[in-house]
Amino acid sequence: MATKTDKTSLESTQLKDIISHAKEYGFVFPSSEIYDGLQAVYDYGQNGVELKNNIKMLWWKCMTQLNQNVVGIDAAIFMHPLTWKASGHIDSFSDPMIDNKDSQKRYRADVLVEEKAAEYEKAGDLEKAQALVKNLARLLEAEDLKGVQELIISENIKCAVSGTTNWTEVRQFNLMFSTQVGSVAEDASTIYLRPETAQGIFVNFLNVQKTGRMKIPFGIAQIGKAFRNEIVARQFTFRMREFEQMEMQFFVRPGTEEEWYENWKQIRLKWHEAMGIPAEKLRFHDHEKLAHYAKAAVDIEFEFPFGFKEVEGIHSRSDFDLSQHQELSRKKQQYFDNDLNEEGKPFGNYVPYVIETSAGADRLFLMTLCNAFTEEEVIEGEATKTRTFLKLHPALAPVKAAIFPLVRKDGLPEKAQQIFDDLKYDFNVIYEERDAIGKRYTRQDLIGTPYCIAVDYETLENNTVTIRDRDTREQQRVPISELSRIIGDAVSYKRIFEKL
Amino acid sequence: MATKTDKTSLESTQLKDIISHAKEYGFVFPSSEIYDGLQAVYDYGQNGVELKNNIKMLWWKCMTQLNQNVVGIDAAIFMHPLTWKASGHIDSFSDPMIDNKDSQKRYRADVLVEEKAAEYEKAGDLEKAQALVKNLARLLEAEDLKGVQELIISENIKCAVSGTTNWTEVRQFNLMFSTQVGSVAEDASTIYLRPETAQGIFVNFLNVQKTGRMKIPFGIAQIGKAFRNEIVARQFTFRMREFEQMEMQFFVRPGTEEEWYENWKQIRLKWHEAMGIPAEKLRFHDHEKLAHYAKAAVDIEFEFPFGFKEVEGIHSRSDFDLSQHQELSRKKQQYFDNDLNEEGKPFGNYVPYVIETSAGADRLFLMTLCNAFTEEEVIEGEATKTRTFLKLHPALAPVKAAIFPLVRKDGLPEKAQQIFDDLKYDFNVIYEERDAIGKRYTRQDLIGTPYCIAVDYETLENNTVTIRDRDTREQQRVPISELSRIIGDAVSYKRIFEKL
Repeated sequence: MATKTDKTSLESTQLKDIISHAKEYGFVFPSSEIYDGLQAVYDYGQNGVELKNNIKMLWWKCMTQLNQNVVGIDAAIFMHPLTWKASGHIDSFSDPMIDNKDSQKRYRADVLVEEKAAEYEKAGDLEKAQALVKNLARLLEAEDLKGVQELIISENIKCAVSGTTNWTEVRQFNLMFSTQVGSVAEDASTIYLRPETAQGIFVNFLNVQKTGRMKIPFGIAQIGKAFRNEIVARQFTFRMREFEQMEMQFFVRPGTEEEWYENWKQIRLKWHEAMGIPAEKLRFHDHEKLAHYAKAAVDIEFEFPFGFKEVEGIHSRSDFDLSQHQELSRKKQQYFDNDLNEEGKPFGNYVPYVIETSAGADRLFLMTLCNAFTEEEVIEGEATKTRTFLKLHPALAPVKAAIFPLVRKDGLPEKAQQIFDDLKYDFNVIYEERDAIGKRYTRQDLIGTPYCIAVDYETLENNTVTIRDRDTREQQRVPISELSRIIGDAVSYKRIFEKL
Repeated sequence: MATKTDKTSLESTQLKDIISHAKEYGFVFPSSEIYDGLQAVYDYGQNGVELKNNIKMLWWKCMTQLNQNVVGIDAAIFMHPLTWKASGHIDSFSDPMIDNKDSQKRYRADVLVEEKAAEYEKAGDLEKAQALVKNLARLLEAEDLKGVQELIISENIKCAVSGTTNWTEVRQFNLMFSTQVGSVAEDASTIYLRPETAQGIFVNFLNVQKTGRMKIPFGIAQIGKAFRNEIVARQFTFRMREFEQMEMQFFVRPGTEEEWYENWKQIRLKWHEAMGIPAEKLRFHDHEKLAHYAKAAVDIEFEFPFGFKEVEGIHSRSDFDLSQHQELSRKKQQYFDNDLNEEGKPFGNYVPYVIETSAGADRLFLMTLCNAFTEEEVIEGEATKTRTFLKLHPALAPVKAAIFPLVRKDGLPEKAQQIFDDLKYDFNVIYEERDAIGKRYTRQDLIGTPYCIAVDYETLENNTVTIRDRDTREQQRVPISELSRIIGDAVSYKRIFEKL
């Protein structure tokens, strides 16, 4: 028990360190911080936006550019409300909530019961814990909210604030944000901020298939914002109310879905490894309980400081979504499969099956940051100290190289500036002349810049500079004319593509 | 008069052509089209998303990578509601609306009056038209909504639907979309979808300045969605309820704002020209009436088929926004100017002045599409026919090259596929073997692909291919090994950067 506590405490310390680091070095700021922030919403700072954009760009290119049969779209956040009727979100995208009448605090009813079960387990009563969890599952399955309330009362679960068991009834609370569009009183209508990007792909299935003359199997990829009114939002950018998804829907011939599901599972796992995540920090986690539309579902999990958690899901969604849209819109969502037709099969027309890959851009960002955050002991003179740096893949690093004049005189700044001006057309580079050079190196380590280039007196003589490697801290002397090639080789996405 | 009518009709025909083209070739689809669409909201298709991303990427790199003192951020759409109190949006971001009681239709009161004035002008009574416009301006200035209603009634303005003058009173209608965040009844609060991205920059001014150690003058750039509940949304993607902005706020020492305003005006105009817009289709339009926060404001206008219209604004915003946030948040929004201090000036601390450049990504997209849409007469055999193609800058084109085997046999498809596989790591290329080769060329012209590469029998002998230029339709025979360099040179952003 002691060990577990220690580990948990160590882990949360590490997350705390990463959160401070993210804020201090311009990666992530709390949203509207001058107004004391908005819960579960974050802004990306000057380094964060570059890192996130690089991750998004890498995903986009891998999906659309490397795959001959995958194209992208960018559908709006606002969609016709019938979309969410068809997808099932209006009817069932909700959490069971309960209020304590004394404290006026609201809780997720299922979470209250699960926490009680965890208490039993902690106290050694595993049997009681399991019985409680099983009981809860049965009640939720039967949509027996009255039963859930009775369970909370009979288990004597108390509000953490008021300490009482004075509970309201349990109600379903829809997680979609709604707003009113249109100005005319009688035709203003309620629309929703999309809770997932996938439906923007489904409603455009035929538009893309026809205008792009796509042949099944083919995929449509999309990056975009989604919104969920999460009750329990936590763990930094892991669960936010406003977040960004990177989803791809792959349309296949019915009967081939298992093969494609396996295929995409492997492709996506490999992608995470190619972008620099060690295999041992990744694992598959099969869903035990499947969503109503799913035939199979698996998560790719990464080992965060707070444990293995989902960063991407691969789902076999059957023809659920397209069939639902077909029914509600009364517009056929079918594909005419000429190959089947040529094989003489009777049914050339069908509603395709879908394999979905759904990654969270903010989660991949957090994964990348956690994975890169490195503290190592280094010897400096006679003392040992801790060096903190971000071991980011060079292709993902916000800044590719920093150019420093050794001193602020004798023409060194001008020479360094000239190198900056030559490199800036190809790479995101920065120029810095303030502070001692050691301090400048440290600053770049902290934001993960793979190379630092120093201009010294020898540069003026023979047009060579030193180039310092972030990870090894080793410096090499190279001709200025070689810089573009050295940096270009290291930061190219091609090096990642080749591992796929 | 006849000429004017003809021209207008010609112009709207051309916009109609562009809208159909955009839909037919996968650039822009109406949102949720299977449910008959959502007014003033659009989705970008497989070619549209690439074109739009290329425009955004070009802007981003020009702003942040080429300018040593400009960095980016990505703030959330959700912000603390006090942000909009400070910016003035809660109190005054509204349009005066009036309802007709018989038809239940709602109109913008000011637009009704302006249309009446236009009628007078059309009928030759210029004096009456001008008097009416002046009268309206005076009433709006005085916030005399009762007066505006009386004006509408006294001018006998009728509802276009009911034909009556049975009007309600005039009310201000706020253009912000609101929603409820948080689940707890008593602490759920109303938040807004941001109506502009600029405030996400202002509230992060000190976060970026301090963590990035930025020295004034410096800028913060951002690309992101904004939302306005427009009453009269029209002209395709020109005025949408959900749209994307590309904004940069440049923070300067008070007293230098005029110089920087002029500077950014010229830089931004040049940028539009560098991305391929002819100078004669662009013009400056100074704002006559300035917003409450502005010291000077100018639009860059492009000549759309529906006339010269704003694609970007450059605004001298004084210290209005930062001062407002300082007051409301009670957190100092000041910069300590060490240079001033070193010059012995008494006031090293100040609230910076701001020059803003604010472009609409969707408008730049539409501008690029309109500018590229080309119809030319070509002679084919003995007939003349109209060739339609998109003369897009190669750096912006969705697809950089299409690779075709001349026929579907004798190993030509395999050879072409091999070229595709070599090029796909560097460029967004496509492979196509269906249809006659002429038809394949035509299809690529229609989506603006700068190069088509054909693999024929000679290719198998000497590893050369033909490469066809979209604009001249000329074909050249080149070695396969040269393709990457030829395409790379043409599509590189560097060619645009060098013109800046």
